[in-house]
Amino acid sequence: MPKVGVVGCGYWGPNLIRNLAENRNCSQIVCCDLRPENLERISSRYPAVHVTPEFEEILGIGLDAVMIATPLSTHYGLARRALEADLDVFVEKPFTASSMEAMDLIDLARRRKRVLMVGHTFEYSPPVIKIRDLIESKELGTVFYLSSTRVNLGLHQKDVSVVWDLAPHDLSMINFWFGTGPTAVSALGRDFVQPGIPDVAFISLTFGSGMIGHIQVSWLSPSKLRRTTIVGSRKMVIYDDTDHLERVKVFDKGVNFRDPETFGEYQLSYRTGDIVSPKLDTTEPLQAEVSDFLESIRTRRRPKCDGESGLRVIRVLEAVERSLHEGGRIIELGPPLEVAATPRDDRAP
Amino acid sequence: MPKVGVVGCGYWGPNLIRNLAENRNCSQIVCCDLRPENLERISSRYPAVHVTPEFEEILGIGLDAVMIATPLSTHYGLARRALEADLDVFVEKPFTASSMEAMDLIDLARRRKRVLMVGHTFEYSPPVIKIRDLIESKELGTVFYLSSTRVNLGLHQKDVSVVWDLAPHDLSMINFWFGTGPTAVSALGRDFVQPGIPDVAFISLTFGSGMIGHIQVSWLSPSKLRRTTIVGSRKMVIYDDTDHLERVKVFDKGVNFRDPETFGEYQLSYRTGDIVSPKLDTTEPLQAEVSDFLESIRTRRRPKCDGESGLRVIRVLEAVERSLHEGGRIIELGPPLEVAATPRDDRAP
Amino acid sequence: MPKVGVVGCGYWGPNLIRNLAENRNCSQIVCCDLRPENLERISSRYPAVHVTPEFEEILGIGLDAVMIATPLSTHYGLARRALEADLDVFVEKPFTASSMEAMDLIDLARRRKRVLMVGHTFEYSPPVIKIRDLIESKELGTVFYLSSTRVNLGLHQKDVSVVWDLAPHDLSMINFWFGTGPTAVSALGRDFVQPGIPDVAFISLTFGSGMIGHIQVSWLSPSKLRRTTIVGSRKMVIYDDTDHLERVKVFDKGVNFRDPETFGEYQLSYRTGDIVSPKLDTTEPLQAEVSDFLESIRTRRRPKCDGESGLRVIRVLEAVERSLHEGGRIIELGPPLEVAATPRDDRAP
Amino acid sequence: MPKVGVVGCGYWGPNLIRNLAENRNCSQIVCCDLRPENLERISSRYPAVHVTPEFEEILGIGLDAVMIATPLSTHYGLARRALEADLDVFVEKPFTASSMEAMDLIDLARRRKRVLMVGHTFEYSPPVIKIRDLIESKELGTVFYLSSTRVNLGLHQKDVSVVWDLAPHDLSMINFWFGTGPTAVSALGRDFVQPGIPDVAFISLTFGSGMIGHIQVSWLSPSKLRRTTIVGSRKMVIYDDTDHLERVKVFDKGVNFRDPETFGEYQLSYRTGDIVSPKLDTTEPLQAEVSDFLESIRTRRRPKCDGESGLRVIRVLEAVERSLHEGGRIIELGPPLEVAATPRDDRAP
Repeated sequence: MPKVGVVGCGYWGPNLIRNLAENRNCSQIVCCDLRPENLERISSRYPAVHVTPEFEEILGIGLDAVMIATPLSTHYGLARRALEADLDVFVEKPFTASSMEAMDLIDLARRRKRVLMVGHTFEYSPPVIKIRDLIESKELGTVFYLSSTRVNLGLHQKDVSVVWDLAPHDLSMINFWFGTGPTAVSALGRDFVQPGIPDVAFISLTFGSGMIGHIQVSWLSPSKLRRTTIVGSRKMVIYDDTDHLERVKVFDKGVNFRDPETFGEYQLSYRTGDIVSPKLDTTEPLQAEVSDFLESIRTRRRPKCDGESGLRVIRVLEAVERSLHEGGRIIELGPPLEVAATPRDDRAP
Repeated sequence: MPKVGVVGCGYWGPNLIRNLAENRNCSQIVCCDLRPENLERISSRYPAVHVTPEFEEILGIGLDAVMIATPLSTHYGLARRALEADLDVFVEKPFTASSMEAMDLIDLARRRKRVLMVGHTFEYSPPVIKIRDLIESKELGTVFYLSSTRVNLGLHQKDVSVVWDLAPHDLSMINFWFGTGPTAVSALGRDFVQPGIPDVAFISLTFGSGMIGHIQVSWLSPSKLRRTTIVGSRKMVIYDDTDHLERVKVFDKGVNFRDPETFGEYQLSYRTGDIVSPKLDTTEPLQAEVSDFLESIRTRRRPKCDGESGLRVIRVLEAVERSLHEGGRIIELGPPLEVAATPRDDRAP
Repeated sequence: MPKVGVVGCGYWGPNLIRNLAENRNCSQIVCCDLRPENLERISSRYPAVHVTPEFEEILGIGLDAVMIATPLSTHYGLARRALEADLDVFVEKPFTASSMEAMDLIDLARRRKRVLMVGHTFEYSPPVIKIRDLIESKELGTVFYLSSTRVNLGLHQKDVSVVWDLAPHDLSMINFWFGTGPTAVSALGRDFVQPGIPDVAFISLTFGSGMIGHIQVSWLSPSKLRRTTIVGSRKMVIYDDTDHLERVKVFDKGVNFRDPETFGEYQLSYRTGDIVSPKLDTTEPLQAEVSDFLESIRTRRRPKCDGESGLRVIRVLEAVERSLHEGGRIIELGPPLEVAATPRDDRAP
Repeated sequence: MPKVGVVGCGYWGPNLIRNLAENRNCSQIVCCDLRPENLERISSRYPAVHVTPEFEEILGIGLDAVMIATPLSTHYGLARRALEADLDVFVEKPFTASSMEAMDLIDLARRRKRVLMVGHTFEYSPPVIKIRDLIESKELGTVFYLSSTRVNLGLHQKDVSVVWDLAPHDLSMINFWFGTGPTAVSALGRDFVQPGIPDVAFISLTFGSGMIGHIQVSWLSPSKLRRTTIVGSRKMVIYDDTDHLERVKVFDKGVNFRDPETFGEYQLSYRTGDIVSPKLDTTEPLQAEVSDFLESIRTRRRPKCDGESGLRVIRVLEAVERSLHEGGRIIELGPPLEVAATPRDDRAP
């Protein structure tokens, strides 16, 4: 059973630690953080966990793997050193601060034959998996467009914009649902509160398939919204992550249209059928994510969210940021990185 | 008291006729439509109303004014002929099919000293007027951004895109609220159902003040949404036109920030106070609109929504459409047409 | 085709007139009201309709049937005279001011072989019919209980209490759904605004089957609620008549329980499956009701809501009122009037 | 600083332990439970906490106070022994299984000069305190009635009915809000799942002031509702504990009525003003409750929810249960126990 280090025990790290502590497939946990108060909190909560302020100790103490939940700017350096020390590596999202860094880590992991995983937790979330099934089974028909709103009041980050903070969730879901990302993006945004750090952005996405998409992210909104609408030719879905009773609603709605009967005349009619909120699995996504990492370590398989998955998101974030800085100019993304056909069943974890 | 003709008695015209019929300041109504069944319906409902299939009759029968509620492509020709016949003219939104047409009508009305009004009904709507008051009184502080969603399933129009069908509402409200329109737009959209007629569009707006905006319009959505969020530095507003109990909600929420105390450190905190749904007037907007037209005829004043008001919306629609056709390119609008300072109290009608 | 008189053209009558006017199976309409202004409004709206202030004229003008939409206290007298004049009779709900009156009318109609119908419009409403189907098909299993809330602010009636104003809706639905009414009732209420006229009441219902029910009615509530919950052993339903998108929601929820495995130990588990909002027919209930009356006149069949149906509701209202006046004492209703097995398909109208 | 024992570490006890552990005014915690697995869970979570399966140890180990969170049937015996051992005592709600038991404990505590507190947590909840302020300040005017719905699916208790499980929340709030309880009750309910243990009940309440109330409790409902409506002569309140954004809404709504102008004619009109969701304090109620207990131990004052407070709830529960068993008969409660005028400011804790 793997021994795992957790680096970064501030905001998110404790969630990883809790899930490792509750997972029977993890034999030992070591935690690392520069702030003594963070380590003290972990120690009093988990007396059996060893803590250290030294990252070097994490590398040399005989661990199998490390999970990195530090500020974005440190992801690359820490992950690189861990891979060089032949550890399997999990990095929180966003993966890295640039696609160059991401590609370098992917390359290094491949050469060292190390597991490299990125923490796109939503891909382990039951409503998101349900929607993937609806898309894959063609129950929605051809997907025309999707529109996502991910807004609330705060928390303003000091090191990353609202785009890097919130949009990775939507972008990783899109990759997961459609097996591909956008081919072009444009974005309009502003830094209303902290100069130089956009806190509101409207992001438009174009896909090779003809599908289009839109993501609104904001730290300046009166109410918290986590709502994605996916419109297909056969059915439509609203995924509202704040509605605990009915997270996913499938609308049997659409337009029925046939070719012109008489010259130049389209015949349209609207179909309105049942609305169904399917029962969803109640697994905690983070538990499934941690299990996937531990299982990947054990069996040397690829995790569901591997380095390429992280890179695909980073490439779009870079393009969005560039468009933001150039006043909303359309940025082409070049040939999309197709999601590798993988022999594993991603429902498994 | 004015005698008024209504041209176009299909979908919207009957609403104008009903309001004219119930208004004590209109002495006579004459209706015109090419389809006999439309005229029959009017006759059986309003036996006192004279009906005719001949637009010429409308021009020559001694009326004071005409209200035009026909398909968009006919607005210009009909309005021009009415102005030339020295009638006061009301045109349904969108005003005209191009800004050239709009400018020509404005010029003609000015020369003929005719009233020229455009049917931006929302500017007479109590929630919209309430929000204008909140903005003007600075209760919201500086407005950072607004985001509007105007979507439902259908009705697909055959002659205009979803942009020309639904966005005029938001664009006229923006003009009314801020006294100015956007200086640049970009838009991403698609024609999923009828080739050549976009049914979904994401529209980004840039304003000279630094404010930004976004409008989502769609005829392909699972549920009807009419929701505008306006975020100011002091307060935030959600205007949900489908919520009959609480159409406008004012959130006493915001970010408190001071200049750095220590080098490079911003101090942010979030303020969360009461949420208030102010009582709204219950006037029917269309009744106020028709009253404004009749009063403008009587007193020779400018109506609240004059030709310039209609033109401002058309110019943005043209720019949005151009951006749509050029794949989302940013289109500059040139110097904004400032709303003329008018001596009239637009709360009056 | 029947010629029909409408008596009472104030608040509700015009809805009957509109539906008669739009129905191809009604050849002539005559309207009667004591107030000239009500008749004038009808005349200007429907020039072809004959109006009169004299009820005698209604009886003697050669009509086939009459629909009575006057204040409750006049129902009995008007209906009796119409039946005696050999007219078919429709009476708005509540049927009569007492069960004695109701029984007398039923008896008279039987002897004269006249159609006698009561306006329990909800029994023609698509969500109500859908729920009846769910109950009859045993999809809900055994129904344990139902709870209904029918509250809003106003309108305070001057002649009847909130119980007689609002509870008939729930009571007629219960009759329709379960084919029987309660065997005992109790009620707590008060007259907060108008002395002697209760405006709030909590009504408890006991049924022979073991089912229980509760109805809350109020003219003194902050928001309008029209919500009925029906809990069965297999599924549960929420019928919210103010939710235009999802009027009926069927919850695949319940308790699974088996007999004790070990001595004295019940094994319970909770089942939570899909939530489905079934597509509902969009017929206007009042149109179906008027059609049923016209068809019953034509074919001499029993209408869906006959006099017995009206009587069953009146008997419960009387018992509720008695309990109200006796401080909430339980009032037994005697043997329930079973809904007669009728050869007609009540889905037909 | 007090040393506190917690007896019962199953479902609720751990919440008490967590709040004691985080409270700086508690110097030592000892936990007692019959089940070793419960004690083990506490030990691994709080290594510094001493655990024991022996209640005797709790009594003899030199503690100042004990908090009892065991099944209802054991409350009396455990509390009695603790008071006899001169410990201050906190008992979870419902206080005891009968009013006899409650009175005996109150008497014993008085004689021993011990603090006796009951865990009516809602009385420490910010929305509940806000509503008390609205009532006390007469902002609602005279309260006409209240209606509460507290329903969900499960959990079926094996030892108490849904009335004893859920109604204490509403009954303690009512005591807190109005300073008095009902003078008579009646209740209709059934035991649909477990024979002999009612799982659905409709409870009607009569108050000496003329106010009436209704409480619906159920373990058999499709969705979780925690909703109380309070209707006053001046304003109305909806308290929805499941609405995290707007728990309390104050409606400036009401009926304006004057004495008859003309003989027998009331003049009614309806007033509809703003709807306000006041900002609420974010204190955790349980933290305030535990603080109140610790402070009461330290200063020998009465806690906000003392034994009398617990007894008042038990007396109503007994009456409700009796009415349930007698088919809904009205049960008079005798002279209400007025809430003692207390010199302490119950906003303090």
